[in-house]
Amino acid sequence: MAYEELSKSTIFPLGEKVEANFIGDAYLQMIFMDKTPLNARIGNVTFAPKSRNNWHSHNVGQVLLVTGGQGWYQEEGKAAKLLTSGDVVNIPPHVKHWHGATNDSWFVHLAITPGETEWFDPVDDAWFNALKNNETNN
Amino acid sequence: MAYEELSKSTIFPLGEKVEANFIGDAYLQMIFMDKTPLNARIGNVTFAPKSRNNWHSHNVGQVLLVTGGQGWYQEEGKAAKLLTSGDVVNIPPHVKHWHGATNDSWFVHLAITPGETEWFDPVDDAWFNALKNNETNN
Repeated sequence: MAYEELSKSTIFPLGEKVEANFIGDAYLQMIFMDKTPLNARIGNVTFAPKSRNNWHSHNVGQVLLVTGGQGWYQEEGKAAKLLTSGDVVNIPPHVKHWHGATNDSWFVHLAITPGETEWFDPVDDAWFNALKNNETNN
Repeated sequence: MAYEELSKSTIFPLGEKVEANFIGDAYLQMIFMDKTPLNARIGNVTFAPKSRNNWHSHNVGQVLLVTGGQGWYQEEGKAAKLLTSGDVVNIPPHVKHWHGATNDSWFVHLAITPGETEWFDPVDDAWFNALKNNETNN
């Protein structure tokens, strides 16, 4: 997905640039923070190409709903999975992982998060650039 | 949004035609039904123009995330609200309401539902056709 096509997948607002725990240009807009009826908050996260969050874990878990672009989801000790629009990911509690855009595509997902997040080390360029099929040619 | 543009907002699968408790052509695909980590199930609901669900209520509540088109949300005793892509609705528990497409637009939303739904009477054509600004001219 090219930069000029990003607007087609920004269903929910882009929000503000994330300043901590991410590499590159990523944006967050919380779209649901009411205390009822869900046990979770909902944020819209938009990653510019190459941007990604640091390794982290959720004490209750998290659900990702991919609404645009292409990105990676990787759990510690496992191969990275390529995500595209329409994918749904159930992230188990206490599993160290990261997610972010591919090398050449924007990536947009809703993150539905009960509980809290613990942050660890960045996903450095050497790790990121070694991912297979990182060029999606879109 | 014209018929041929529907595909741009069908981020999640269209699913099967809903056979009960709706008027017109509406489609449902459940996209998240795991028991953890959320207290809710998530469905993708797609309404053809003029289609709508019957009056109903949720015993815990429901959250709608509008991903495409234009539609109505109406609580009993209140004016109908026009919804467009990016809108978020927190439906209180035990409040009788309905939602559906406008007269001339498809309408797509995610429905995040904890608890159960109780169904009541259809939103008949006389009621639906009396809604103001029902022609959106898109």
